Amino acid sequence: MRNKMSLEEAIKICTDLVGLGRESENIPISAARDRVASENVIALNDVPPFDRSKLDGYAVTAGDFEQINAGIAADYKIIGQIAAGSNHNIKLCCGTTARIMTGAPLPEGAHAVIRQEYTVKTGNRVNIMVRPGSETGCESRGSILSKAQEIDLAGSILNERLMELLISAGINSVKVFRRPRVYIISTGSELVMPGQPAAYGHIYNTNFSMLTGKLEREGCEVIQGRGDLNDTLPEIKKEVRKALDSADLVIITGGASEGDFDLVPAALRENGCQILCGELEMRPGRHTTIAVKDNVLIFNLPGNPNGGSILFDVLISPALRKLRGIKDFRRIWFNIGLAGPARCSASLRTFCRGQLIDGLNGPEAVPLQKNLKIEGIAPVILDIPAGKGQQGSVVRALLL
Amino acid sequence: MRNKMSLEEAIKICTDLVGLGRESENIPISAARDRVASENVIALNDVPPFDRSKLDGYAVTAGDFEQINAGIAADYKIIGQIAAGSNHNIKLCCGTTARIMTGAPLPEGAHAVIRQEYTVKTGNRVNIMVRPGSETGCESRGSILSKAQEIDLAGSILNERLMELLISAGINSVKVFRRPRVYIISTGSELVMPGQPAAYGHIYNTNFSMLTGKLEREGCEVIQGRGDLNDTLPEIKKEVRKALDSADLVIITGGASEGDFDLVPAALRENGCQILCGELEMRPGRHTTIAVKDNVLIFNLPGNPNGGSILFDVLISPALRKLRGIKDFRRIWFNIGLAGPARCSASLRTFCRGQLIDGLNGPEAVPLQKNLKIEGIAPVILDIPAGKGQQGSVVRALLL
Repeated sequence: MRNKMSLEEAIKICTDLVGLGRESENIPISAARDRVASENVIALNDVPPFDRSKLDGYAVTAGDFEQINAGIAADYKIIGQIAAGSNHNIKLCCGTTARIMTGAPLPEGAHAVIRQEYTVKTGNRVNIMVRPGSETGCESRGSILSKAQEIDLAGSILNERLMELLISAGINSVKVFRRPRVYIISTGSELVMPGQPAAYGHIYNTNFSMLTGKLEREGCEVIQGRGDLNDTLPEIKKEVRKALDSADLVIITGGASEGDFDLVPAALRENGCQILCGELEMRPGRHTTIAVKDNVLIFNLPGNPNGGSILFDVLISPALRKLRGIKDFRRIWFNIGLAGPARCSASLRTFCRGQLIDGLNGPEAVPLQKNLKIEGIAPVILDIPAGKGQQGSVVRALLL
Repeated sequence: MRNKMSLEEAIKICTDLVGLGRESENIPISAARDRVASENVIALNDVPPFDRSKLDGYAVTAGDFEQINAGIAADYKIIGQIAAGSNHNIKLCCGTTARIMTGAPLPEGAHAVIRQEYTVKTGNRVNIMVRPGSETGCESRGSILSKAQEIDLAGSILNERLMELLISAGINSVKVFRRPRVYIISTGSELVMPGQPAAYGHIYNTNFSMLTGKLEREGCEVIQGRGDLNDTLPEIKKEVRKALDSADLVIITGGASEGDFDLVPAALRENGCQILCGELEMRPGRHTTIAVKDNVLIFNLPGNPNGGSILFDVLISPALRKLRGIKDFRRIWFNIGLAGPARCSASLRTFCRGQLIDGLNGPEAVPLQKNLKIEGIAPVILDIPAGKGQQGSVVRALLL
């Protein structure tokens, strides 16, 4: 008996089984982009590291700032000029000011910086004409991060903004999870690797290109196994054993259906794998097998790369994201209206790619079931309930 | 006088000036992912290369298929078995059938394949129980692409799906535009490169990390110039000259404001650059300078990496995409409701990052103005009209 389940059940089983990240390693910050932090880090300096001006203008004391805001006009004596990067020993007192640039350290005694557009300078004096209000135009030392503060980083992808924060805090290396190792196999006696001659009855393996691309985007290390494996049980068994010995996760395309040469589930069983799911209640991907041995998940996808690519995005990606160590491994699904009809099954949920367009009341989705070219700007997968592919239907969409 | 313009005017000027792609080069298909094709290609074989079965089942002739659909029951004699990848010489005639697997070449005389679930096999005969309807279960040779057919590829990003099509068509190499060379410079006497000791008044350069990340994602070759350039005109002039000599596009952070040490526009002018725009009517990025020399565009962004990062996404990215050779270089903007309030200027459009959430009637956007961590899943830039930052406002969003 095939163990049939919904996509949601399959995602839950896979993400429950897979650990949150594998071993971790220490790498320089310059190599850390898109890696997943395995530990929190400690700020090595205050951010910003000193009280600084956010404007080009004139620094004043707290008392003078109060006077200015009370509307009491006065001229201030300019006692110095402070450029960004300068280490000065200017000290303000009541009635004095210093010319100061954006990013420059505040002089001692300064409480606020008045925007230069609000001032008129005459010789070495400046007149302030506008009440600046409560905004001081300054940024305090440590207002973004304090030295020795713990930065909640574990389980986060190191995107550009987090990298910026770490660099600002003086951090030069970071602990990250190692990349998951994913072994890929394609079975099918009709397959030939690209670049080889293809005899009658044979086609080129396109799954390796698709899977390698998607896995590299997901931050994985790809191990390309056999891409032209014949449909014979001993060959498949041997290749599966090799995969189980060397990878954190295995993806096998082809051989998953009910034909006489669909031998992958048998090869998995004979290698001691436990079959978790033998059929998914969705199209494409009905004939998908999910198995596990120790803590290695094995996905056996349909041989058709269109189906395989959608299953990768909706089913394998959450498990891979958790395996990478990403704490928020779930992706965003939302409601969206169909801007055109989708071919869909009358009895099963159908998943297909979609393009977003600018509708009157927000984005709408155009189902893409044929156009290969547009996928680069087809950022969603649509989940269309059985028989609900009409234009105007509201369906669920996954933002890739 | 500063030449003030809207974001849309600036984008138009930049994308009009920049050419659609630079020189092209021939590369193997295995290295082509995310590159931009510079020419159309010709299919070297039919896709699929032979008439094939889409199912596991039984092949029948056109006459028998008509009989079956007319409800005339009969037993068919099984005269052979065809696995995927096999080169056989089976020939069907009326009353005979062949067992056939998904992806296998059709036998001579076959018109349709009946799904095995619709049949009962007894010995070497099979009984077909269901009228399959018009669906033949077959895919004709060349139905996706014909041999010698031109594939409209020029100006497309080679995504996984296009790569699949090219591999299927027997193509092993492709002409692509070379990656744009982008020279980056950061000015500001307060800047220190990461890993160096930072004296009082100094901060780490975080713009290089941000820009390098974004440029690499955009398929560019990054040339890191000086990241700690002092605010002196001769030094800036020299570095700008070097950049103009070696790059297709130049990005300079800092020195763009109206402070006493904001010398970049002067350095550009003295290098013979024409200033196209001296001020953008938006926040952040009001103090942005855009210049050109020959066909090299120069962007002078604010020193604050938050502002610089948004300007990169909304302003520089379209120009870079066209420079890469992408025909559809414009990105998708759409309407979206704000799920929370955004701090915004009362007099200027404000741009900020947004996170998408699953609202009742489709996605809604949460403005992110402080949270650095969430950007990995903050896929939009919001364009908030002056004073319209209230929760519920409908604004424009750019999907990154």
